[in-house]
Amino acid sequence: MVKRYDSTKINELVYDIYKAYGFSEEQSHQAADMLIYTDLHGIESHGVQRLVMYDNFIQNGKIRVQSAPEIVKETDVSAVVDAHFGLGQLNGIYSMDIAIQKAKEHGIGIVTTRNSGHYGIAGYYANMAAEQGLMGMSSCNSRPAMLPTHATKALVGTNPIAFAMPAKPHTFIFDVATTTVPQGKIEVYRKLEKDLPALWVAKDGETPVYDHNDTEDFDLLRDPDANVGLAPLGGVTEDTGSHKGFGLGVIVEVFTSILSMGNVSNEITPTDLSVGPCQSFVAIDPSIFGDKDAIFEKFSNYLQDIRSLPAVPGKTIYVAGDKEALAYENNIKNGIEIDDRTLEEIEAIAARLNVKYEAFV
Amino acid sequence: MVKRYDSTKINELVYDIYKAYGFSEEQSHQAADMLIYTDLHGIESHGVQRLVMYDNFIQNGKIRVQSAPEIVKETDVSAVVDAHFGLGQLNGIYSMDIAIQKAKEHGIGIVTTRNSGHYGIAGYYANMAAEQGLMGMSSCNSRPAMLPTHATKALVGTNPIAFAMPAKPHTFIFDVATTTVPQGKIEVYRKLEKDLPALWVAKDGETPVYDHNDTEDFDLLRDPDANVGLAPLGGVTEDTGSHKGFGLGVIVEVFTSILSMGNVSNEITPTDLSVGPCQSFVAIDPSIFGDKDAIFEKFSNYLQDIRSLPAVPGKTIYVAGDKEALAYENNIKNGIEIDDRTLEEIEAIAARLNVKYEAFV
Repeated sequence: MVKRYDSTKINELVYDIYKAYGFSEEQSHQAADMLIYTDLHGIESHGVQRLVMYDNFIQNGKIRVQSAPEIVKETDVSAVVDAHFGLGQLNGIYSMDIAIQKAKEHGIGIVTTRNSGHYGIAGYYANMAAEQGLMGMSSCNSRPAMLPTHATKALVGTNPIAFAMPAKPHTFIFDVATTTVPQGKIEVYRKLEKDLPALWVAKDGETPVYDHNDTEDFDLLRDPDANVGLAPLGGVTEDTGSHKGFGLGVIVEVFTSILSMGNVSNEITPTDLSVGPCQSFVAIDPSIFGDKDAIFEKFSNYLQDIRSLPAVPGKTIYVAGDKEALAYENNIKNGIEIDDRTLEEIEAIAARLNVKYEAFV
Repeated sequence: MVKRYDSTKINELVYDIYKAYGFSEEQSHQAADMLIYTDLHGIESHGVQRLVMYDNFIQNGKIRVQSAPEIVKETDVSAVVDAHFGLGQLNGIYSMDIAIQKAKEHGIGIVTTRNSGHYGIAGYYANMAAEQGLMGMSSCNSRPAMLPTHATKALVGTNPIAFAMPAKPHTFIFDVATTTVPQGKIEVYRKLEKDLPALWVAKDGETPVYDHNDTEDFDLLRDPDANVGLAPLGGVTEDTGSHKGFGLGVIVEVFTSILSMGNVSNEITPTDLSVGPCQSFVAIDPSIFGDKDAIFEKFSNYLQDIRSLPAVPGKTIYVAGDKEALAYENNIKNGIEIDDRTLEEIEAIAARLNVKYEAFV
């Protein structure tokens, strides 16, 4: 069962939980705000539903509460950050703030961060730049999930790319995995006992796995040595563009693990405490190219031209960020959606940490 | 019939043709080298095969021989170039040289160029940076070709993205349209009288057009008001990731036409002499992040890990640039492939311009 809850109250609850882990007030606000932002924008797979995963990582030491990210190399337009395995969200906010500052001073800032943790949706960090009137980008690597074209074993991560830019009536936010779908989407279909609608998962490099009853195959997605993996954006054959999604995933790897000299995808595991994912953060001030307001207006008009095209009957043409803006409008008014199981998990975490729970839900 | 020809001789012939148009010696070398590079790397659709298109544009004034690109706005890390409708290749080389110079001095250079012309493969410009030990990116917009997800009419261009980075045993070069395939690939299948193997072209937003005999539908691809267009990378439904290819196409539009305040895709036509495509050029010096050689070695090892994965029987795992490197090795030794029809077209151009032809082929 999924019910709606007041986002302000859930935010307070999540804040109290992070405080109880030992994070500072500011850190706890940042972490809570980030997760609630995600739920408010309708991306429930990456919102408070993920608290239990972060809780496990904090308990087993994969996330180190006392760690602080550190700049290890810096120029006017760039920085390398060693996150020392602190909370991914805090590393992300810290790193994007550096990129934003550099963009404001020098036009562009690129930051690459190693030894980080799972940082939630990449779009959050890209949007931080957009909120400052800049263009923002972020991406991260992950453990092996994607099948390189013609490979029978996964190696590249789901490696999302996010891009945000101010526009009217709302910010353009693009945030997509370079696999056809992220891992979380498959979990959603399995929970709903629905068969997958397209070639999302492949066995032996080519054979679609789509029956939701193929439990054994789906479970192998967590095993980097297995013959099952996620199809790149573009599927598993060159005819459909497989090499394009695969190549984009490799480029994400460059900006995250390669430039930061951190862990590449095939070194990352959920259990090894000495490795962590890497992330990248870019901010660009459009003013270095021209009048910022004129640029944003031109962009808004272009997006509106696209929305105004004739559409397939019964369908709406959405540009990136439209659906999230609609979800926000609804969820800020009517509450964010949380399923019973997630709520039970949060209740158990709160109980263990002696955090009051009842008042918030 | 396709035959092989000595690339050095064809280069001289193309050089003579450009000289005859009125380009300087340096310009003619740049233009000829660029086209021959393309053929040497096995991308025949964009090599000398395109001479006839450029010839038409030079004759009708869409390409202005006497135009010189001009920097209209500049910072330490950026520039906006107005190309004044000069030859796309020359604008591209000029603009990428600026990006490279800025990257060498300040770590990063981003250039956006408006009022340009068709500039050939985006990968050529990205590779210019890689040849200087930098990372390079380039992209361009084009007339409407891509169907935004659920739209029944094209609006976004094929908008390719290219990325190059030095690696062993050869440079990583990624260069792909954000549609599932570029327009040229469809022409190739039609010439070969082969049906299309996947959903490359869609009618009314959803219906695949794949029979090579559907001449009427394919011809509508050139008509921006028609109900036929190219599928984005990821197809035409969200299940297969259509919104991802579409969103990437829009991001290319940002870095090309929006930031340069040039012509957006839906303003571009092959006939209107007062509009032209826009391009972007990025160079980044990896040294701003760490030891350049260590970064390139780490990247080379990662690519080798991918190539070494178990593959689908009978298939080889190629990373971006592998096929082009193999083609180069073959073509530099055995000659570049040119079909008879292209050769006839070149002969006619040479005859009109009083350029000696026989000695070169």
